[in-house]
Amino acid sequence: MNKIEHIGIAVKDIEASNELFRSLFGEAHYKIEDVESEGVKTSFFKCGPNKIELLQATSEDSPIAKFLEKKGEGIHHIAFAVEDIENEIKRLKKEGFKMIHETAKKGADNKLIAFLHPKSTNGVLIELCQDIRE
Amino acid sequence: MNKIEHIGIAVKDIEASNELFRSLFGEAHYKIEDVESEGVKTSFFKCGPNKIELLQATSEDSPIAKFLEKKGEGIHHIAFAVEDIENEIKRLKKEGFKMIHETAKKGADNKLIAFLHPKSTNGVLIELCQDIRE
Repeated sequence: MNKIEHIGIAVKDIEASNELFRSLFGEAHYKIEDVESEGVKTSFFKCGPNKIELLQATSEDSPIAKFLEKKGEGIHHIAFAVEDIENEIKRLKKEGFKMIHETAKKGADNKLIAFLHPKSTNGVLIELCQDIRE
Repeated sequence: MNKIEHIGIAVKDIEASNELFRSLFGEAHYKIEDVESEGVKTSFFKCGPNKIELLQATSEDSPIAKFLEKKGEGIHHIAFAVEDIENEIKRLKKEGFKMIHETAKKGADNKLIAFLHPKSTNGVLIELCQDIRE
């Protein structure tokens, strides 16, 4: 794993939170993106080599809607950048980790992604992500 | 803020979690440190420009003991690296953020640190940290 690619934060009102994180970083978000398949609206902030992704639910059955209902606003997941996501999934399964996605799928921000099950990672929801190469 | 310096993860059994994160990163922790003033035992893993800090409570009134009781194992805080922590505290207070520490104090890993109150940051516990310069 090369670095923390981003941290995903679940928020109720992405407009208000964009304002809050602009004040925090002293710089506005550089991108917004709707991921319809996940029922989320996202915005991205840069912080040196890392990013912060804010996530607001756009449908009631979105994983973010369920997270907000259960735990309230806060950190939802950590994403690590990997070179070769399919190889990394294979390696982690061999190490005994449980994958939510056994094979990578398309996520936000032009990435291939796969989540590990938090039950196998100390309650931390971990995402692997790899840039989609042309 | 220059980058995500580290993510702090609250764990019940740091020996078991050191093993788990070794499997995850394919590399063992490079440091352990007791922070008696906070009632925690910590271990650090490198991930490119970022770190993961595991935190186990060593006393019942440690903030980590309270966190584990209330929320269970999982992500406890995000720490951002800053150049000048006292200036950053001043700037954030001016922006309306509530600080847990109004002035920086000595933390683990040879840093000056200060926490923001999660009530003012979407439920995210945020730490500022600055290297202690000789």
